[in-house]
Amino acid sequence: MVNTLFLPELREMLADNNVAELQEFCEALHPARTADFMDGLEPAEIWRVLAHTSESNRVTVFEYLPLEMQQQIIETQDLDEMAGLVSQLTSDERVDILQDIDQTRLASLLQRLPVKIRREVLRLSQYPEGTAGSLMATEFVAVPEHLTIRQAIDEIARQADHYETIYYLFIVDDDDHLRGIVTARDLMRGMRQPDTPMSELMNTAVITVNVLDDQQDVVNKVAKLDVLAIPVIDQERRLVGIITHDDVIDLVRDEATDDALRSVAVEPLEDTYLRTPVLELSWKRGVWLAVLLCFALIPAFSLKHYETRLNEWAWLIAFIPLIISSGGNSGNQSATLVITALSQGHASGSDWLKIVLRELCMGLLLGVLLAVIGTAISILVIGGPESFAQAMIVPVTLVLVVMCGAVLGAALPLIFRSLGLDPALMSNPFVAGICDILGIVIYMNVAGLMIGL
Amino acid sequence: MVNTLFLPELREMLADNNVAELQEFCEALHPARTADFMDGLEPAEIWRVLAHTSESNRVTVFEYLPLEMQQQIIETQDLDEMAGLVSQLTSDERVDILQDIDQTRLASLLQRLPVKIRREVLRLSQYPEGTAGSLMATEFVAVPEHLTIRQAIDEIARQADHYETIYYLFIVDDDDHLRGIVTARDLMRGMRQPDTPMSELMNTAVITVNVLDDQQDVVNKVAKLDVLAIPVIDQERRLVGIITHDDVIDLVRDEATDDALRSVAVEPLEDTYLRTPVLELSWKRGVWLAVLLCFALIPAFSLKHYETRLNEWAWLIAFIPLIISSGGNSGNQSATLVITALSQGHASGSDWLKIVLRELCMGLLLGVLLAVIGTAISILVIGGPESFAQAMIVPVTLVLVVMCGAVLGAALPLIFRSLGLDPALMSNPFVAGICDILGIVIYMNVAGLMIGL
Repeated sequence: MVNTLFLPELREMLADNNVAELQEFCEALHPARTADFMDGLEPAEIWRVLAHTSESNRVTVFEYLPLEMQQQIIETQDLDEMAGLVSQLTSDERVDILQDIDQTRLASLLQRLPVKIRREVLRLSQYPEGTAGSLMATEFVAVPEHLTIRQAIDEIARQADHYETIYYLFIVDDDDHLRGIVTARDLMRGMRQPDTPMSELMNTAVITVNVLDDQQDVVNKVAKLDVLAIPVIDQERRLVGIITHDDVIDLVRDEATDDALRSVAVEPLEDTYLRTPVLELSWKRGVWLAVLLCFALIPAFSLKHYETRLNEWAWLIAFIPLIISSGGNSGNQSATLVITALSQGHASGSDWLKIVLRELCMGLLLGVLLAVIGTAISILVIGGPESFAQAMIVPVTLVLVVMCGAVLGAALPLIFRSLGLDPALMSNPFVAGICDILGIVIYMNVAGLMIGL
Repeated sequence: MVNTLFLPELREMLADNNVAELQEFCEALHPARTADFMDGLEPAEIWRVLAHTSESNRVTVFEYLPLEMQQQIIETQDLDEMAGLVSQLTSDERVDILQDIDQTRLASLLQRLPVKIRREVLRLSQYPEGTAGSLMATEFVAVPEHLTIRQAIDEIARQADHYETIYYLFIVDDDDHLRGIVTARDLMRGMRQPDTPMSELMNTAVITVNVLDDQQDVVNKVAKLDVLAIPVIDQERRLVGIITHDDVIDLVRDEATDDALRSVAVEPLEDTYLRTPVLELSWKRGVWLAVLLCFALIPAFSLKHYETRLNEWAWLIAFIPLIISSGGNSGNQSATLVITALSQGHASGSDWLKIVLRELCMGLLLGVLLAVIGTAISILVIGGPESFAQAMIVPVTLVLVVMCGAVLGAALPLIFRSLGLDPALMSNPFVAGICDILGIVIYMNVAGLMIGL
């Protein structure tokens, strides 16, 4: 949603070079609102607007712009100014923004960055996507354990600008090993004895993540501990970064959206729905629709196989959609229940037997429920069947199909997990597709048996 | 997942009344771990273990216990001790924990709470679930605007224990109207001029939420602004509470799980998957499966209506599952794309025409793609059709069904939204169910037209 309210006015201010009003626009609002109101301007226009405020406010507003716009500005505006901007960003945002920049541009930009920052960009961009390392920032306050409270406070007051969070102080030994943590709250409480060394104030029961841990583990830990930031350590237990609460919120939201899309077989989008071009979106949907179509051809061929039987008992046809949708719905319910339980750490692979048994029970209960309701309505609407055996075909099939759906829906994500694959790959249309095939085979065989009786 | 490693040892410590070891267990670990390791103990045992540590650590560990266990402890342990515990909790957790407590117990407990806390509980529990008011805590630092930096720091140092976050100071006028915000970072930076009044240090561009705003708005704002806490104001713009980052993370995760379950027609669970009784879970699934079954009977009846046509052209039957699943899949993709875009604020009801047109284009593209692939495979496997008209039945149906699915899938959540209902109610199985019915009607009519030619 582009908020176009301010655009004509902003363009007029730029045309008139109205310094006072542009400065007012940059500074009177919350920086997030300033960024919002520029949505719709060209990269060059945004950069010209931002020239009218202090460097620190410029960086703050820039950080609230959409990622794509940030990248366009970096790719098109004055190289030296961009190098200045990039070196002011926090380390994790810097890496995110630079990762899709044109290679030649990136090389010239890196050359203009201070050596320390350049090295950091190169180091941070080496962590595989989805690991704690790829998410962390390096702007944490590390305090040697022998410093006193007074010295620590002076240190923070001097450098508050440079840190991602000053609310946790990480206490390290001479080799950067994490020894403990002191919150700003502890520090304020300790201010009455300002000569106490930090090693006495610190809390040593710190929960950390490893630099190569999966981001899902990071989310689970931060969500559980309610912390502002979690320290990231390397294989030698040295403190190398922190991941802050705001990154975790973004991560949880992005994962939720990606999972929702994957669950209906759409490749996750890089941009918002309305901004993604129709062709790109069609491709992200079409690939999986095509795969699912090939899947759906299997029931077509298996129905062909039963053609003579269906010709003889034409009324069986009417119940095909009902039977396959019941199996698919029950399978999707189980799959989603198991996938969410696994991803939130509420169940693990070792619970598989318990899960399968529960689904077997539930499948039986649900199958019987559907069979009773389905039969009752059919008799009311279509009228009584010709024989008991005939009357039992649809109900018996329903019970079996719903049970198979429930067990399969739960088992497939577990199998994927045990193979080291993401259980969420077993998306709803696939579970439903497999249930369709099974449903038809079960239906035709039950019919064969019943009518053969 | 119960971690049973420590349970026998803990029970032995309790039996031996081993004070030193119990204290060690309560204090050496991170409080979240202490809580984890007690998973599996009875409420009375947990409370006995926690008797061996300081009151503040006891409260912290208690806050990391699962909600259900917290409630069991409060319902079963000594009433006076429980009143002491409850009065130490933060206001938002207190209300969450008390809301499902047995009414008689709750009344006796409330009687034993200090008047101020009792009134607060009653006031906070009046906000409807899902509003900002039901999420907020009241432990924020409100500082009158005329205080100096030095006075403000003294104030925080004295009361740091009582606040949910001391990292934001909310500057208010004499009538509690929110005037501005000062972060602990600003405060530390300002410490060199300790006599500056807070009104000069404060930032007045504050973004707030209203006490009756929907929690989704809270999530969207906090996620966008990357703030530690967002102030909550009432209708008169008085500051009444704050919502902190950790509550927002929990909210995002819970909503993601609930949405995932709703999308496959399962009522959201109150507890984890493995802890929810089979009967309760079956009920939460069965209700919707039964409704969907009634839905699925419509295609059954409509197929019965076409019985003579199907008898004549038996090969049409084979493609029923393929046609209904293609329509359903395409519809689910659109519905999920639109629902996620709406809930994240990336699209609004006013974009409806744009959305419908995009889906029409995509539906056409996807339909043609599926038609080409489907026809090619069918010819390869089954062999050439008898006539051109016959050959065109399935492809033409596919194009129409996929287009209808895409447009309907997008339109249904938009219609729900405009009626003031949650778009997420238009869950995947419902969209698929509607597409099933449409698919069969389109299929039979296309077949009638083509064969009639």
